[in-house]
Amino acid sequence: MAKDKFVIGFDLGGTKMQASALDDSFKILANSRTKTLATTGRESIYKRLVDCISELLQDPALKDMKHRGIGIGAPGPLDPVKGVIIDTPNFNWKNFPLGGRLKEDFGVPVAVDNDVNMGTYGEFHFGAGKKLQNVIGIFPGTGIGGGIILNGDLYRGRDGNAGELGHVIVQVDGPRCGCGRRGCLEAVASRIAIAREAAALAMRGDAPHLLENGGTDLTKIRSGVLARSIKNGDKLVEEVVRRAARMIGIAMGSFVNIFNPDAFILGGGLIEKLEDIFLEETMAAMKEHSFPFLNKGVKILPAKLGDDAAVMGAAKLISEKLGNA
Amino acid sequence: MAKDKFVIGFDLGGTKMQASALDDSFKILANSRTKTLATTGRESIYKRLVDCISELLQDPALKDMKHRGIGIGAPGPLDPVKGVIIDTPNFNWKNFPLGGRLKEDFGVPVAVDNDVNMGTYGEFHFGAGKKLQNVIGIFPGTGIGGGIILNGDLYRGRDGNAGELGHVIVQVDGPRCGCGRRGCLEAVASRIAIAREAAALAMRGDAPHLLENGGTDLTKIRSGVLARSIKNGDKLVEEVVRRAARMIGIAMGSFVNIFNPDAFILGGGLIEKLEDIFLEETMAAMKEHSFPFLNKGVKILPAKLGDDAAVMGAAKLISEKLGNA
Repeated sequence: MAKDKFVIGFDLGGTKMQASALDDSFKILANSRTKTLATTGRESIYKRLVDCISELLQDPALKDMKHRGIGIGAPGPLDPVKGVIIDTPNFNWKNFPLGGRLKEDFGVPVAVDNDVNMGTYGEFHFGAGKKLQNVIGIFPGTGIGGGIILNGDLYRGRDGNAGELGHVIVQVDGPRCGCGRRGCLEAVASRIAIAREAAALAMRGDAPHLLENGGTDLTKIRSGVLARSIKNGDKLVEEVVRRAARMIGIAMGSFVNIFNPDAFILGGGLIEKLEDIFLEETMAAMKEHSFPFLNKGVKILPAKLGDDAAVMGAAKLISEKLGNA
Repeated sequence: MAKDKFVIGFDLGGTKMQASALDDSFKILANSRTKTLATTGRESIYKRLVDCISELLQDPALKDMKHRGIGIGAPGPLDPVKGVIIDTPNFNWKNFPLGGRLKEDFGVPVAVDNDVNMGTYGEFHFGAGKKLQNVIGIFPGTGIGGGIILNGDLYRGRDGNAGELGHVIVQVDGPRCGCGRRGCLEAVASRIAIAREAAALAMRGDAPHLLENGGTDLTKIRSGVLARSIKNGDKLVEEVVRRAARMIGIAMGSFVNIFNPDAFILGGGLIEKLEDIFLEETMAAMKEHSFPFLNKGVKILPAKLGDDAAVMGAAKLISEKLGNA
């Protein structure tokens, strides 16, 4: 009778949200997706979230099945024990009791954790990281998120907010980062950092294909646009992407020296669209910047689950909380 | 009858070695110390080690007590499971079966681990880190060693060699490091990095007290010499030390973002002689280079056990292995 129960895994992102229902063997039975519309404000975002779950619960595939609980990956910083979002400025969520509200509205247990942690956790259990013990997840996008699996379990740190791997300092007093500090990995290797350089190339006439396909507006220089521009022959765009990938690889070298891990999992839009370049450059730079006795055999694995990673990780988390891992 | 047994904790350093006997409550009953004389070679070093332990065993304080085992902190890389030193070039130890040899020679169980791990473990259980859960130990000296305690236990990584915290990259393509790579923390903040700058100051006449007390020979510019020179008014030497301390603090900022720890423990000669400068600069730079929600309340604690940290950590390790933790 294992098929008569399900849990919900939820991925709350800055631009979109996804609710998925999973059975006891973590097979996805049904999905519901919608835009986050972050600028609409605190209660509006929460209402969209509730509607997204409610819509999922209407799915015929879940008929007569018992809803056991909700696991949700959300932007941090947050308190995973209390289920409270501490401060997510673009949602206007400050001390927002996400776990408590959901528990009240749906009458089931809720587990809240960081969205990138949940993506890493999903890949670790069901995707690229299966059967490994010490795995570092890195997700380069507009920012660079991270998740850390040590000795087979998610590492959370003192308050539950460990793993801000995009904010290790790789260049003291380097370029300004979105976090307000200088020289973070994210400041030199995120999609924004790449787009900044690439747009300048396009504007100067040094990247004709990028100029034609994406233009000089940073918001329009998305991963797919970069990939097409490189494929069409924009050599200098390729150089910019390779340099950013090298920076991530250098930070991965530091992580090898710190963690002596089994593997890295790389995920997110940049990796999906530019996998070959990222795997090649990160492997070379990682090896160059770590001890041979530590980097021997370390794998760099592309994420396998795409958009489903975080919902699967969150479903696993709530299942563990319910005593059904 | 808890007092009738003891374990030996051993600290094998590059310049000196120490063997200590500890009772079940980890009180040190007797010590034996000697120089390592690393250049004398593979078997000679091992013989000095055996002699050091044999001398300890003659101590009247251990009369009629049962010797239960040996825990030893040694330079890495090493295999803590097999007790084999993989490669310590200055000892000419390559695949040296330290654990097996000691077990054969003394007829007791042996546990082998990294020396800096053992120092961190000792401070964690008996010194500055008591009652904490997530603690990062940093020991700046001629190199910069590290040890990582996560969720109340030593973190070892895949092969047992995690925690090379002196070799995180803080300055991509920066100064050459002893490890052969560039821009490591150790390359910009170890005592060698400090002495290099300070000696140049002395040579140029910009550090008169250092010139008088230590001269321009890097090997003579030890921590105590630096401290005296600063105390006597060599302002530029102070600036050099502060800059190195700031670099360590910047790396600590990265570690805060990675680990969300409770505290750092700083130990070693530089910290002992220049504690105020190091605590002040590392705290400021750590706060400046990490998220406020992660660095809130993070403590920076000077090590408390001095030379006894590693022998106590090693004694704890073998006691755990013997089932008497």
